[in-house]
Amino acid sequence: MRIYDIIEKKRDGLELLDSEIRFFIDGYTKGEIPDYQAAALVMAIYLRGMSDRETTVLTSAMAESGDLLDLSVFGDLTVDKHSTGGVGDKTTLIVTPIVASLGCKVAKMSGRGLGHTGGTIDKLESIKGFRTELSSEEFISQVERVGISVISAGKALAPADKKLYALRDVTATVGSVPLIVSSIMSKKLAGGSKSIVLDVKTGSGAFCKSVENSRLLAEKMVTIGKASGRRVSAVITDMDIPLGTAVGNASEVKEAVAVLKGDDKNKDLIEVCVRLATEMVSNCLGYDLQSAEEQVRESIKNGNAYRKFVEWVSAQGGDVSSIEAENYGRAKYSREVLAPFDAYITKMDTEGIGTAAMLLGAGRKSKEDSIDFDAGVDIFAKTGKFVNKGDRIAVLWASNEELLDGAEEKYLQSLSFGAECPQKRPLIYDVVR
Amino acid sequence: MRIYDIIEKKRDGLELLDSEIRFFIDGYTKGEIPDYQAAALVMAIYLRGMSDRETTVLTSAMAESGDLLDLSVFGDLTVDKHSTGGVGDKTTLIVTPIVASLGCKVAKMSGRGLGHTGGTIDKLESIKGFRTELSSEEFISQVERVGISVISAGKALAPADKKLYALRDVTATVGSVPLIVSSIMSKKLAGGSKSIVLDVKTGSGAFCKSVENSRLLAEKMVTIGKASGRRVSAVITDMDIPLGTAVGNASEVKEAVAVLKGDDKNKDLIEVCVRLATEMVSNCLGYDLQSAEEQVRESIKNGNAYRKFVEWVSAQGGDVSSIEAENYGRAKYSREVLAPFDAYITKMDTEGIGTAAMLLGAGRKSKEDSIDFDAGVDIFAKTGKFVNKGDRIAVLWASNEELLDGAEEKYLQSLSFGAECPQKRPLIYDVVR
Repeated sequence: MRIYDIIEKKRDGLELLDSEIRFFIDGYTKGEIPDYQAAALVMAIYLRGMSDRETTVLTSAMAESGDLLDLSVFGDLTVDKHSTGGVGDKTTLIVTPIVASLGCKVAKMSGRGLGHTGGTIDKLESIKGFRTELSSEEFISQVERVGISVISAGKALAPADKKLYALRDVTATVGSVPLIVSSIMSKKLAGGSKSIVLDVKTGSGAFCKSVENSRLLAEKMVTIGKASGRRVSAVITDMDIPLGTAVGNASEVKEAVAVLKGDDKNKDLIEVCVRLATEMVSNCLGYDLQSAEEQVRESIKNGNAYRKFVEWVSAQGGDVSSIEAENYGRAKYSREVLAPFDAYITKMDTEGIGTAAMLLGAGRKSKEDSIDFDAGVDIFAKTGKFVNKGDRIAVLWASNEELLDGAEEKYLQSLSFGAECPQKRPLIYDVVR
Repeated sequence: MRIYDIIEKKRDGLELLDSEIRFFIDGYTKGEIPDYQAAALVMAIYLRGMSDRETTVLTSAMAESGDLLDLSVFGDLTVDKHSTGGVGDKTTLIVTPIVASLGCKVAKMSGRGLGHTGGTIDKLESIKGFRTELSSEEFISQVERVGISVISAGKALAPADKKLYALRDVTATVGSVPLIVSSIMSKKLAGGSKSIVLDVKTGSGAFCKSVENSRLLAEKMVTIGKASGRRVSAVITDMDIPLGTAVGNASEVKEAVAVLKGDDKNKDLIEVCVRLATEMVSNCLGYDLQSAEEQVRESIKNGNAYRKFVEWVSAQGGDVSSIEAENYGRAKYSREVLAPFDAYITKMDTEGIGTAAMLLGAGRKSKEDSIDFDAGVDIFAKTGKFVNKGDRIAVLWASNEELLDGAEEKYLQSLSFGAECPQKRPLIYDVVR
């Protein structure tokens, strides 16, 4: 078999054989196939597409390029979730203790934030002492004991995806549905959970800006996950507005804890979390959707979800006392962003708002950058709200005063104002099962 | 400017700006743009195409990546020719002395053979003593004195094309019209001649197997050449059957000399050469086609073309006595290929016949291989001929007896036989001007 012939075949729009896809992934992971041939092939895949069968094989080949987590000891109880990424998305912190409190087993590997999107591992690390690297034994035994463990995805998880993603990132081939699907799902398959719930974000702060693209991606991921023998649902949720009111690592933990404690001010955040948790519980424990949702809501109400959160944080070495005392870090410098007009906020460029948070130190421009857990944005007015000139619409926090000007400019640039109240977008567009 | 954005633009089917194309060629030639980004871009070009404007700019950027030959001292008298490659194609040896004998100036850089196709430089080097590397001064002064000089294309000629071609060769992106056109025409432009005549081969022994593709390629090359200020014609000629009867370096020189001496047995070879020479003379000296053709035929008849050939070979150090004595090398071992049936030869897979000659030692499998000038094939029966079982249809020549079996098998595999005489294909399909 020759990689040349595989490139040629895909270039001409033909379907690749299973063996050809596996030959490519195996050879590329081992360094036997050079970057330039892989680059030509991924551009051909970008422009010619891949069938569901090809995508399924690509996904499993990438999953099998590294370690496969064996969760068979937990039977059908394991459940994983994945978000395609957004701004203010702290749902993992909320839904995993909910579902663990109901008997699901969450053995989860998460990533760090990059660019305008945050990452669960960064948020968890904002809790003093929280360890995101555990040995396999610690990890599994914690899942057994506590029902939940979340660690940083290591190098051994789908190394083919890591290598291929880095190549796609510099060859303008990131935005290809089969390549996105196989990238996400290969890591979920290697993660070993029987049930998988995907939160596919849509809108100005999401990777997929249009609902159509989000739906296509959701459908493909569900198809490929099922073809690989997993129970999969994808919830298409709005990311045209930041989720909740906090953007920034420590402040997002604070907001998540408030929801777990029963604070019901953040209706949108709660609704998204309940829907995700309901899908997880239903997939994992086999409950019908209505009773799953009832149990999810009850677990918040009766405090079991919050207690599970505390148990989880404590198990991974996190400082529980500061959480219980509601004592969170706040950066030294702050800036109030004031409404420039009497007007409705008609649109938030949510990617821009995520970028403003990144500029404050809450995110990374490149992988090597460090993060300021205490930096971020508190949002006081979102799309659809009427504000009067001079109203406080946000507060920016930074440990370095010089960062405030640029972030304020970016934040204001990201808002559109108008005389008419904009039409409300749905919060949850669809669930693909 | 970023190469990423250029890849993305072409990926989406948009036209690149002149400055973007030049940025790519410049950066790639200097090694500032890595192979993997270039590979993604050429695959996008392969699948999305390029407009004539883009192709013209790509061609001139590649030409300007290295030395540009200055032939301005010869005014409008310079003429170059290029063949897209075939089997038994010795036309350069015949047409260049014809047109030089009529006053054209031929300052030509040629290539070596690879795979099933031969190269002019190899054929010339089969003449004892012939020097294919001359200093610029020797080269120009010989053109001035003799009217013709043919040397090996050096590294300084369109280095961007050399680098890009090597990449296309391993990424299944050779067969893209704008990339083929720019590859050929960049070298012709850098070669500096005012007039250019292209011999675009079509059929089983050609790069373009179909007449439609050959015509498309011819039209594009003429368009791009004219847009670059040259006088260009492209003659579409048949390569479904080897040209002439000799395939192999020394034997092709012998066949070319026979034509120049007035031997009129090889009607097809003569007709192609006359047409090419007529276009060259007409483009270069401004004669109408009819009088150009009369002068071309007359130059063979009156011996001027042959005398010019001898003068040229002698000027480049070649042993003229062996040519005048018709004393050519012949490999030590030979094998007669016999007709296996009483039948018409209905088809020759001419690429296969070129490969048989390569297997005998007359060509190169890879660039590093050496060539046996005395090896090759003499063809006695071509498509359309009725042969009786046991008739000698070819003789194979090799310096190593062990090569004969494989070459004989390949030769016979390349022939189809049938009960009906096949329809005759045109020899010259069209001239694009």
